[in-house]
Amino acid sequence: MFKILNNDKNTGARSAELFTKTNSIETPVFMPIGTLGTVKSVSPFELYDEGFKIILSNTYHLFLRPGIDVIEKFGSLRNFINYKGSILTDSGGFQIFSLAKFAKPNGDGVEFMSHIDGNRHFFTPEKVIKLQETFDSDIMMPLDIFSGPEASRSKAHSDLSITISWAKRSLEARTKKENLLFLITQGNFFEDLRINCAAALADLDADGYAIGGLAVGEDKEIMFKMLNCSISKLPELKPRYLMGVGTPEDILNAIGCGVDMFDCVLPTRNARNGFAFTAKGNLNIKNAIYRDDTEPIDAECLCFCCSNFSKAYVRHAFMSREIFSQRLLTIHNLHFYEKMILNTRKAIKEGYFESYKNKFIKLRKTGEEHNENITQFL
Amino acid sequence: MFKILNNDKNTGARSAELFTKTNSIETPVFMPIGTLGTVKSVSPFELYDEGFKIILSNTYHLFLRPGIDVIEKFGSLRNFINYKGSILTDSGGFQIFSLAKFAKPNGDGVEFMSHIDGNRHFFTPEKVIKLQETFDSDIMMPLDIFSGPEASRSKAHSDLSITISWAKRSLEARTKKENLLFLITQGNFFEDLRINCAAALADLDADGYAIGGLAVGEDKEIMFKMLNCSISKLPELKPRYLMGVGTPEDILNAIGCGVDMFDCVLPTRNARNGFAFTAKGNLNIKNAIYRDDTEPIDAECLCFCCSNFSKAYVRHAFMSREIFSQRLLTIHNLHFYEKMILNTRKAIKEGYFESYKNKFIKLRKTGEEHNENITQFL
Repeated sequence: MFKILNNDKNTGARSAELFTKTNSIETPVFMPIGTLGTVKSVSPFELYDEGFKIILSNTYHLFLRPGIDVIEKFGSLRNFINYKGSILTDSGGFQIFSLAKFAKPNGDGVEFMSHIDGNRHFFTPEKVIKLQETFDSDIMMPLDIFSGPEASRSKAHSDLSITISWAKRSLEARTKKENLLFLITQGNFFEDLRINCAAALADLDADGYAIGGLAVGEDKEIMFKMLNCSISKLPELKPRYLMGVGTPEDILNAIGCGVDMFDCVLPTRNARNGFAFTAKGNLNIKNAIYRDDTEPIDAECLCFCCSNFSKAYVRHAFMSREIFSQRLLTIHNLHFYEKMILNTRKAIKEGYFESYKNKFIKLRKTGEEHNENITQFL
Repeated sequence: MFKILNNDKNTGARSAELFTKTNSIETPVFMPIGTLGTVKSVSPFELYDEGFKIILSNTYHLFLRPGIDVIEKFGSLRNFINYKGSILTDSGGFQIFSLAKFAKPNGDGVEFMSHIDGNRHFFTPEKVIKLQETFDSDIMMPLDIFSGPEASRSKAHSDLSITISWAKRSLEARTKKENLLFLITQGNFFEDLRINCAAALADLDADGYAIGGLAVGEDKEIMFKMLNCSISKLPELKPRYLMGVGTPEDILNAIGCGVDMFDCVLPTRNARNGFAFTAKGNLNIKNAIYRDDTEPIDAECLCFCCSNFSKAYVRHAFMSREIFSQRLLTIHNLHFYEKMILNTRKAIKEGYFESYKNKFIKLRKTGEEHNENITQFL
């Protein structure tokens, strides 16, 4: 199910292959977010052809819209959205506790009000597994409690007990082995809670492990300290998924800690706000200096946007609120992430991950052209 | 420059070939609207591959955004937007008199305030030609006065005199033969004004003739009466372009009157509002009956949307405000228009245009499946 191909000598980085019921996925991997089944502005074919063999959707959102009966009628979420690759569905625990109103967890499950129409619903760990089995998700996530970044130690601790008990119930509730089930480690910003939670979940027979509750506003230093606490107790031979991370730099550093899988709204959401990632730093297409710039966003980028359109055109379309500009920037940013991931896999395989990571980060920070090895980063 | 291939025996319909500096265009032709250089949500490559060899842009809008100096730096509007086909640029006369504020025409030109920032500008016929030569437009349109649907006969008459004098000045102002120049016939809803204007402009050596000021809220009967008045005095051997029209039915009827070229926001704007055109009538994807409909919008349509996605998915994406749904519906509607035009050309060529037109209109009206000849309409 998960086959490690290379371990980096100097860091925790590894490259591997993850087998789902749909396909095999090389890791490290970045999963674009299609919360409602659509990665905003792009087609599922463009996505697959760009190299993305797995995307993320969200159980909470899809349960509310279009509703489970609709997806059931199509046999699977895959059929409904017509995506050839794998789909990981997040449980919606994070959304219930951050987006929905009045989330009230008890031992059994959690009651919440829809953020769309205010209707009340009740999710149990069993129900969330059932929903994802109906989606026929390649990778399912269990219901968990997100305590929020400000939670006290005692609140974090009691929430964690529930999260762990729900993880066990989720494992028991699943009926099919081929829908993989990852468990989510939590523990807020408390080292011992992180360690205890990871240790407790590691004892259970899950297909992989996610690290949740990070990248919610804390300092990077704390984030990586917590990440390392969680990873320290996770099994070596199972995939590790850092939820909701992150910037290119965070992803490379987390790969160095031994993380295999990532998802984040950054490349797609930033695109819709006019920001483009490049090897030499980020670029705000709204900037007036690009008004008559005949060059593409990144002259060495081979994406659809950079192969065909100038900064001046993309800026004009963006300033004129043409949705095509959001599509162009989304494709560019996704291409940037995918290229970074491809280069990372190659660097791990060939033994120069640490130098690749450091140079990549330095080049983006300085924003200056480094003529030596420049192609490596593009 | 314009070569008539077939004249229909029973109606005024004809098929022809129009040669621009960029390519040759079969007529009748429907031109999608890319006001600011982009046909909303779709790429210029998708557009061209869908069969659209000419699109429309707008001089007024492009003058304001991104500004003429930007496009000049690219050598042409074609280069700026990276479209392989021809571009017809409307002069912006209509926009100045409907969208901009405080349009004040005098004998020399028209002063107006930008609808974006309120800045004052002054357009003369000569300036508008110069702008379009800078765009390197395949087909240029002269500055004209749109009097509005409520104009009195005396106002319509005096505006018309200015429009005709501006047409002459536009012809004199052009410096290059290869940028074709069409003239715009006006005359509001007054038969004699329509006839006199068309006759006056027909005497000038233009590359083609547009019929303007129609489809602005008047009854269909009046629209077609005015259209026929204008056409009655236009030269047989030059292309005729009915501006801003229209529904599939209006287009087919106008082709029967001898119109060769059309543009309209309907297929693209309606798409963005959730409406899809089909051979059996129009469809509102927001309708709850499509919530779990596993069939495509049109089972016999071969467009990207209908080949890959169900009504339930398109509805879900639309209701969730996914911009990808607007793209899917835009592609579907443009495909519907293009298919109708392709079938129309074939029907003119093979001598059954009138029967095609009548059956097409009847099928859309009744919304019932007519088994005989059904493939002809799809």
